[in-house]
Amino acid sequence: MQPIGHYQQVIADYFASATITKEPANLYNPVNYILSLGGKRMRPVLTLMAAEIFNANCREALPAAVAVEIFHNFSLVHDDIMDDAPLRRGNQTVHEKWDLNTGILSGDAMLILAYQYFEQYEPVTFKALAKLFSKTALEVCEGQQWDVDFEARTDVSLPEYLKMIEYKTAVLVGAAMKMGAIVAKATEENCDSIYNFGLNLGIAFQLQDDYLDAFGDPQTFGKQVGGDIIENKKTYLYLKALEQGSADSKAGLLKWFAAHPEDSTDKISAVKGIFIATGADVATQNAIEAYTLKAFDTLERMDIGLEKKQLLKKFGQNLMQRKV
Amino acid sequence: MQPIGHYQQVIADYFASATITKEPANLYNPVNYILSLGGKRMRPVLTLMAAEIFNANCREALPAAVAVEIFHNFSLVHDDIMDDAPLRRGNQTVHEKWDLNTGILSGDAMLILAYQYFEQYEPVTFKALAKLFSKTALEVCEGQQWDVDFEARTDVSLPEYLKMIEYKTAVLVGAAMKMGAIVAKATEENCDSIYNFGLNLGIAFQLQDDYLDAFGDPQTFGKQVGGDIIENKKTYLYLKALEQGSADSKAGLLKWFAAHPEDSTDKISAVKGIFIATGADVATQNAIEAYTLKAFDTLERMDIGLEKKQLLKKFGQNLMQRKV
Repeated sequence: MQPIGHYQQVIADYFASATITKEPANLYNPVNYILSLGGKRMRPVLTLMAAEIFNANCREALPAAVAVEIFHNFSLVHDDIMDDAPLRRGNQTVHEKWDLNTGILSGDAMLILAYQYFEQYEPVTFKALAKLFSKTALEVCEGQQWDVDFEARTDVSLPEYLKMIEYKTAVLVGAAMKMGAIVAKATEENCDSIYNFGLNLGIAFQLQDDYLDAFGDPQTFGKQVGGDIIENKKTYLYLKALEQGSADSKAGLLKWFAAHPEDSTDKISAVKGIFIATGADVATQNAIEAYTLKAFDTLERMDIGLEKKQLLKKFGQNLMQRKV
Repeated sequence: MQPIGHYQQVIADYFASATITKEPANLYNPVNYILSLGGKRMRPVLTLMAAEIFNANCREALPAAVAVEIFHNFSLVHDDIMDDAPLRRGNQTVHEKWDLNTGILSGDAMLILAYQYFEQYEPVTFKALAKLFSKTALEVCEGQQWDVDFEARTDVSLPEYLKMIEYKTAVLVGAAMKMGAIVAKATEENCDSIYNFGLNLGIAFQLQDDYLDAFGDPQTFGKQVGGDIIENKKTYLYLKALEQGSADSKAGLLKWFAAHPEDSTDKISAVKGIFIATGADVATQNAIEAYTLKAFDTLERMDIGLEKKQLLKKFGQNLMQRKV
């Protein structure tokens, strides 16, 4: 095992040298562009880490890690079209910099390119990776569809919301780690345990995102605090406030979430007040902790050394203490 | 070997019973919809046929055939968005019936679903099929991008055009047949020969499409005769007329292709006149014949019985004598 920085460097080095020079340029330039924008590269780092946890050299897992990162970027390119988002990582989105058709087609190409990276493994490993990948990719599409469906619905339940973030975000974190384990030829039990570790950490991570969006420190939080409130997004905070709030709180929240005021200062502070008054803020923190502990629980069942368990635990703790 | 009708029935039966009932409905209903619209099912029929040519039962090749057809429909859904097409097979396109986001996302899901069908094969066959599929799918994206690029260019050459239709259309015909051969565990040489048979037949098929669009019989041709002329599409006919026409013909053609008249009757008849006067019509028919013969040539090198060669030849001849 190496410090996280080592795996981040391996991934950074790979993408710095992996520019696609094939024709037609109008198909591949957008692919090079989005992959060059960087990001945390959390998923591929987890793939490399998982491979070393199960005693493989992380470089053996590099093609799988790259596939996961390219898939993640495919989903960003197509999601940004669907959300009509102008910016990604502080830069123009692909469909803004080029156009809609380029966004669709270069996204499609990335999905296929991701599969091609698995071809570097022999047939049995190839099949295990591609199968997990297809299952996960389809779940991510399903999660995105639930997310779109939820926008138009007023009766979304908390279990439905948790299922949505599990599919849209967490399954890919679980799959990223399981792929490292598959490459390292870990036992089926260990593969499943590391998947569940990643899955639960992924759910906690997304709930943390919901929490920080409202209660993050504007000094350290990367995005605009209150962005979800401005967009009337049905987050865990919102659904929990509706569930456990008084009739008055509920009516207040529904009123604010039906409005799109020019200046959102009052709306943000009123809604945050309701989140606190209803205890939705504390409930969200409790849920984050519960999913984190659930992730740590799967570590207990894993057949690896204590030192490695400590390292995974530390990684999870750092992720949950993040301010951005 | 069975008559073509048998393979068509196997495919029709499969799709009649293959409705996806999974949630979310908004993701899978469009998939069921586009697959229920039918079409010629030429590609999956070729997969089944190729399997039996190399002595497998066609049912063994059914999952691969279905993958090919689902991929073809994925490309139609995304291409229809890019072309802003309202109709497909006489029905509303997916993005028209639902919306843009549904078109993108259910298309993505279909691309992934196609890969999942290969999982029914053991790892070595799975890898061979998925690898061929990824290569082909990426080429189809490249072909689509060339097609988009060509719209804005005035210097497209005939070899570039042929490369575009090879990638956009023909490689999938070749791959469809090779997949049948792979499932039947044909020799590498036979796999390559049947691929080249399909590839060349696919190019001939697309050139035939170009020809019929201008010179097809309005009574039997399914689409509007002259559609490519109305849209100023740079087809083989157009590029050949520019290449071998006189300065006058060339100037006339360029003039007509710069115009978008309300009533296109005069334009269509004038452009068809130029195609005939420059000999572009005959040259296109010659090219169709040349690619058909090239396909038949690969049959000679194939290690299969005479009867089977005759059947493939007859299939190719029928395809080339089509009026729709």
